[in-house]
Amino acid sequence: MTLIIDCHGHYTTAPEAHNLWREAQKAAFRDGREAPPYPAISDDEIRRTIEENQLRLVRERGADLTIFSPRASAMAHHVGDQAVSTAWAQHCNNLIHRVTQLFPETFTGVCMLPQSPEADLSASVAELERCVTQLGFIGCNLNPDPGGGHFTLPPLTDRYWYPIYEKMVELDVPAMIHVSGSCNPGLHATGAFYIAADTIAFMQLIEGDLFADFPSLRFIIPHGGGAVPYHWGRYRGLADMLKKPDLAGHVMNNVFFDTCVYHQPGVDLLADVIETKNILFGSEMVGAVRGIDPQTGHYFDDTKRYVDALDITAEQRHAIYEGNARRVFPRLDAQLKGRGL
Amino acid sequence: MTLIIDCHGHYTTAPEAHNLWREAQKAAFRDGREAPPYPAISDDEIRRTIEENQLRLVRERGADLTIFSPRASAMAHHVGDQAVSTAWAQHCNNLIHRVTQLFPETFTGVCMLPQSPEADLSASVAELERCVTQLGFIGCNLNPDPGGGHFTLPPLTDRYWYPIYEKMVELDVPAMIHVSGSCNPGLHATGAFYIAADTIAFMQLIEGDLFADFPSLRFIIPHGGGAVPYHWGRYRGLADMLKKPDLAGHVMNNVFFDTCVYHQPGVDLLADVIETKNILFGSEMVGAVRGIDPQTGHYFDDTKRYVDALDITAEQRHAIYEGNARRVFPRLDAQLKGRGL
Repeated sequence: MTLIIDCHGHYTTAPEAHNLWREAQKAAFRDGREAPPYPAISDDEIRRTIEENQLRLVRERGADLTIFSPRASAMAHHVGDQAVSTAWAQHCNNLIHRVTQLFPETFTGVCMLPQSPEADLSASVAELERCVTQLGFIGCNLNPDPGGGHFTLPPLTDRYWYPIYEKMVELDVPAMIHVSGSCNPGLHATGAFYIAADTIAFMQLIEGDLFADFPSLRFIIPHGGGAVPYHWGRYRGLADMLKKPDLAGHVMNNVFFDTCVYHQPGVDLLADVIETKNILFGSEMVGAVRGIDPQTGHYFDDTKRYVDALDITAEQRHAIYEGNARRVFPRLDAQLKGRGL
Repeated sequence: MTLIIDCHGHYTTAPEAHNLWREAQKAAFRDGREAPPYPAISDDEIRRTIEENQLRLVRERGADLTIFSPRASAMAHHVGDQAVSTAWAQHCNNLIHRVTQLFPETFTGVCMLPQSPEADLSASVAELERCVTQLGFIGCNLNPDPGGGHFTLPPLTDRYWYPIYEKMVELDVPAMIHVSGSCNPGLHATGAFYIAADTIAFMQLIEGDLFADFPSLRFIIPHGGGAVPYHWGRYRGLADMLKKPDLAGHVMNNVFFDTCVYHQPGVDLLADVIETKNILFGSEMVGAVRGIDPQTGHYFDDTKRYVDALDITAEQRHAIYEGNARRVFPRLDAQLKGRGL
């Protein structure tokens, strides 16, 4: 018996009142006014947005549990300032918490952080602590480019990031490296910015030596690791050129890729070149691509089909669907054990 | 009989006097002085740098001809101003021309352009015309981010770029989309910036409608198309989400990928998902990764091995090695016909 755990789901279908409040908050910031009070949103409305979308798809496609976080493209850390980001992150995370309370068997929470490009990470540390210790969340999404598409912050190996890593290690939670919406007209969010940032993040980890300082720190690089598995020879070769140890010991005890790659040959390559222990099932659902692939007649983002079709052992499939997620998210493992699973 | 044409070679081993002049030019710019005169470099010295490096490798690995351009990471368009870029591009291109004169059977020239982030493209148009009409070059490298790692210019579909496209169409030469060195500490040049920029460029072409305005414009996206083939389902799905036509008609009559992917599974995927007509043999030699893959005992960048090992027909292999390059570079085809090939 294997639980199908989707490590990468976003609440892209949040109630309209939530989205309207965000617009009001942004307008208030622009005008130098205080944001209006956050609206009342009923349980029924949250239930409806989930049942018609994520829950329907989870059931249709045969998954059991989704690790669920706020809509990534709407985190928009480049908007406003630290106070704006903090209020927005709290409301988004509280909404995720309500989903996990309404559907405790199907959704568990991962928080967004109130990053802000000019700020340090103290507000993010506080929000991570709140979400994990008070809301039962099991991880966070960390934005390597909160400026929104110009890559202005120091690399992830820089000491700027250490306060959040210290808190992650203390709480034993991983981060998914995930940028947000782009304010750069040259970078389409889901088609360019996401995949570029995934790739850039991995190379930053090769260049540095972060996991010597944080041996238990864990990152998930989504979207199948960006370009990394396709260029696996290049990255192995670059590590060699940079006089770094073999990637297996240098980064792959700490870095994991999800299966958000929307065609069979891509998932085949991922499973071929990356060790099974480093692959987590993910769909990014409901996400970047919602249509049906005319070549297959199935939804592009029904990534479970691709994993099911992999030529791997039952043990490997169990690791990708369940075992690796329980190892990377120890708090999920504890939740599941608490449910007798 | 198939000619093995490597569409992606750089003069990364240029004579030291050339590199020292560049340092002197940069120092002079910083100090507000005039750059020193460009040094005399003997034919013998150029011969030596080529024979010991590119020519040796071309022979060892069994290629016939390299489409050769200045060292990409040293274009450094973000350094100095338009005048600095123009002088540097001219000297680099003249050096490539000398290589093509000394080794006419093995090297044909592609130019760098004197782009400068604050400037328009008139100097680039003039240099392209000079290189093609006076030096016999067959294409150019176009830098989509001459700012060096912050992606500040408008997308490649913007009218900012149209003057160079008009000249390319007039001269019937393609461009390889190729960024240069990074001045962003978060973006390693060959490991992050190159691959990210390749991916970003392709998504810009999906979002726009450039080839409606320039039906005969041709781009090579190097490094196997960045992340694109690995995420081919995502890009097909995003085109659908954006209400664009199928990628086959929307971009793939005009966009080509090289085989600079440094392991067999990556090249296998490329050949599996991308039509043969869109793939050009390339090695990026002597390039980003110079070591030997401990898994195979062969050089990472000996990409001919991977192409030779593809499970494709002889006709397809001929297209990847020769036919496609002659079609994408009509001036190369004319040169070869002039040599009776």
